[in-house]
Amino acid sequence: MEKKIDILVIGGGPAGVIGALTAKKYYPEKSIIVMKNVEHGCIPCGIPYMFASLQNPDDNKLGNIPLEKNNIGIAIDEAISINRNSKMVETKKGNKYLYEKLVLAIGSSPMVLPIPGLDKEGVYQIYKDMDYLKKCVEKIKNSKKILVIGGGFIGVEFADEIAKLEGKTVHLVEMLPNVLSNSFDEEFSFIAEEKLKSKGINILINTKVEEIKGKNKVEKVLFSNGKELEFDSIILGIGAVPNIKLAVDAKLEAAERKGIWVDEYMRTIDSDIFAIGDCACKKDFYTRKDTSVMLASTATAEARIAGANLYKLKVIREHVGTIAIYSTYIDGLVLSSAGLTEKTAKQEGFEVIVSTVDGVDKHPASLPGVSKSKVKLIFSKQSGILLGGQISCGMACAQMINLIGVAIQKRMSATELETLQLATHPYLTSAPTTYPIILAAQEVSRKI
Amino acid sequence: MEKKIDILVIGGGPAGVIGALTAKKYYPEKSIIVMKNVEHGCIPCGIPYMFASLQNPDDNKLGNIPLEKNNIGIAIDEAISINRNSKMVETKKGNKYLYEKLVLAIGSSPMVLPIPGLDKEGVYQIYKDMDYLKKCVEKIKNSKKILVIGGGFIGVEFADEIAKLEGKTVHLVEMLPNVLSNSFDEEFSFIAEEKLKSKGINILINTKVEEIKGKNKVEKVLFSNGKELEFDSIILGIGAVPNIKLAVDAKLEAAERKGIWVDEYMRTIDSDIFAIGDCACKKDFYTRKDTSVMLASTATAEARIAGANLYKLKVIREHVGTIAIYSTYIDGLVLSSAGLTEKTAKQEGFEVIVSTVDGVDKHPASLPGVSKSKVKLIFSKQSGILLGGQISCGMACAQMINLIGVAIQKRMSATELETLQLATHPYLTSAPTTYPIILAAQEVSRKI
Repeated sequence: MEKKIDILVIGGGPAGVIGALTAKKYYPEKSIIVMKNVEHGCIPCGIPYMFASLQNPDDNKLGNIPLEKNNIGIAIDEAISINRNSKMVETKKGNKYLYEKLVLAIGSSPMVLPIPGLDKEGVYQIYKDMDYLKKCVEKIKNSKKILVIGGGFIGVEFADEIAKLEGKTVHLVEMLPNVLSNSFDEEFSFIAEEKLKSKGINILINTKVEEIKGKNKVEKVLFSNGKELEFDSIILGIGAVPNIKLAVDAKLEAAERKGIWVDEYMRTIDSDIFAIGDCACKKDFYTRKDTSVMLASTATAEARIAGANLYKLKVIREHVGTIAIYSTYIDGLVLSSAGLTEKTAKQEGFEVIVSTVDGVDKHPASLPGVSKSKVKLIFSKQSGILLGGQISCGMACAQMINLIGVAIQKRMSATELETLQLATHPYLTSAPTTYPIILAAQEVSRKI
Repeated sequence: MEKKIDILVIGGGPAGVIGALTAKKYYPEKSIIVMKNVEHGCIPCGIPYMFASLQNPDDNKLGNIPLEKNNIGIAIDEAISINRNSKMVETKKGNKYLYEKLVLAIGSSPMVLPIPGLDKEGVYQIYKDMDYLKKCVEKIKNSKKILVIGGGFIGVEFADEIAKLEGKTVHLVEMLPNVLSNSFDEEFSFIAEEKLKSKGINILINTKVEEIKGKNKVEKVLFSNGKELEFDSIILGIGAVPNIKLAVDAKLEAAERKGIWVDEYMRTIDSDIFAIGDCACKKDFYTRKDTSVMLASTATAEARIAGANLYKLKVIREHVGTIAIYSTYIDGLVLSSAGLTEKTAKQEGFEVIVSTVDGVDKHPASLPGVSKSKVKLIFSKQSGILLGGQISCGMACAQMINLIGVAIQKRMSATELETLQLATHPYLTSAPTTYPIILAAQEVSRKI
């Protein structure tokens, strides 16, 4: 089959779907097809919740309805090559698509760890394929001793969810000195670790997996501390690497572990080809260095920029790098981070001034359901500009990180933050007299 | 007694306390006294929660500990005159305070309604005096039929709390066509009204109280629709007017219902006298007209500016008017507003473009505890600048209004908002693909 299409989007994850939907809004007269390599994708950040919180794992399906309702075609197929001269994509099923504009939203693949035994039965990588994941969930539910490899937010969320199932022994192993240490300073990692431990999860830090042992199936794991423990299932909640093969083969600029090079408008070196989401290169907001942040929220922000700007640069991009903003959740505890941590800021050479405020997330503190909160803000010492923030709290302050995120993106100073007008309410926030972002900014502003 | 003091703060509410604490941080060598006219004040926004949510009403006390810990003196007394020439305040107890800097944080008083019978036993005004309020709470707990006058957020919160008590019949009366109509467009007022009704609260809109009848004590109320209903208690959850007498007598510039005139740094026409909180004039952020917003969060923001700038202008003010940002809470339903409503924006002459997004506050929507959300953003049509926003949602998006608040204060445009990087999480927010602020901004941006 040979098909002419105005806009071809390769990839059916959040980036691909939002890229296509945005393109349809801005260019309603154009024909669009989204090509997906799996029949049913899933909401990536919802994957951990398929284990316990969601009664039916199918509820985490990334549905096709928004695409269908907007008259966007869907092709279940896999692109195998791009011919940039003839503006044509060839597929595994032998189809040829002639495009005007091509959007690569081809995502990432789990990092391959150099651990002997990873290929044994009972070891689960996380692929964003609904049918595969449903089988994983079934297997884990039938396991007793489960090891989660990786103490980043994915690993932490897996461990938390699996611990909710009856009768499981859960271990979480992380080779760095703390869990969540890429996005949090250690005082926040400690809070997460305490919470995980309180739920009966065994945490192994500063520890690597040396070998997965067993005949065909996982039986034991040998750790770098010399210990050997029995397991019947292993989940890899580790990092991912951008999928770039399709782009490299088409002589687009792209690098291993970095992704496909794009300009501010998500255009590759070929201005008719865009790349968005996990497969596209990201720059750090403060240093402009390459960064490997992979978040659905970043991916969808890029997709909206690409979708609007496919034919004309309509939506001017105001932020020029990723601030790595996200939240994670452990059984009622919310941990959020945006921008640079104190550790990373110092490593990068920033002279920082830091303030941490401990408080509660409602007022008065005797209201039902009150939780402790900790807010840390990191500022540049001379300029007073906000570099990053971290929060631990209960549900009530879950969206506080987005206030910090906007402040970072608008390069707000301590003075601006300390005079900010905010909504407060007994049930919903700490008191106006002790709102932690204000207090932290005030503390810093006085010291500058 | 005659006493020399560097900084005298009159008023022990949030403005006074934060004014004094901020002054101590910036000018630690200065002596400070806070003069309060009641022994025990209370957290103003916590008052409704003294009826049911707080097991012990005393938990809503505005404690003196922060002042004491910071070596700030407390005087239980009432200022009766200011002599600006001799820089002296005289008090009811016959004391004389000589000040270098004087901060007026003398608050507001409940508006006096022209209703016959308001002086009867069983009618309760809300004064911020702990001993008085505790008696109120007792009386209400012993009442059966309670009328709340005023459908603003205070009245709505009173009605919601009292309805939590066993065996009460609660009526809420509002003379305007909707509850909460000063800060919300009617579609949000409807949501609040539905929620209140679902809790068994009887709402009378477009209705005034004509007369409170009874021998010495409240027995019946005659409404403007001709109906007469029996009540044994009445609470006034109505507006307040700034206390200005002290300032007017001292020939400071001040006007009835507007408050004491202040410059950007909360200085009155006498640069050694500052006014903050409810007693101080407020300007609207967009029009610079006088506005009567009275919120503890506004008051504390002003207090921080005054406290830092008493002797030198150290903290430069970046926002120059109040955006009237606040949240209210009805039994799990959060309603938040910031900036102009569509109605007010049009009345003021803005040409607006509006977008409303309905969604859910978690993703996938089948997660436990999910709530519906509605987000409305109001933009200026030509400039694309955000004028205001309203939200109804569950607890999870309680702090989303503060993101809108910062966007207003930074005069962000639809384009900036649609490309914003945000933290999303299944348990805490709607999906990155459908984050309501982004979708609303995108919709508006396309239409401009």
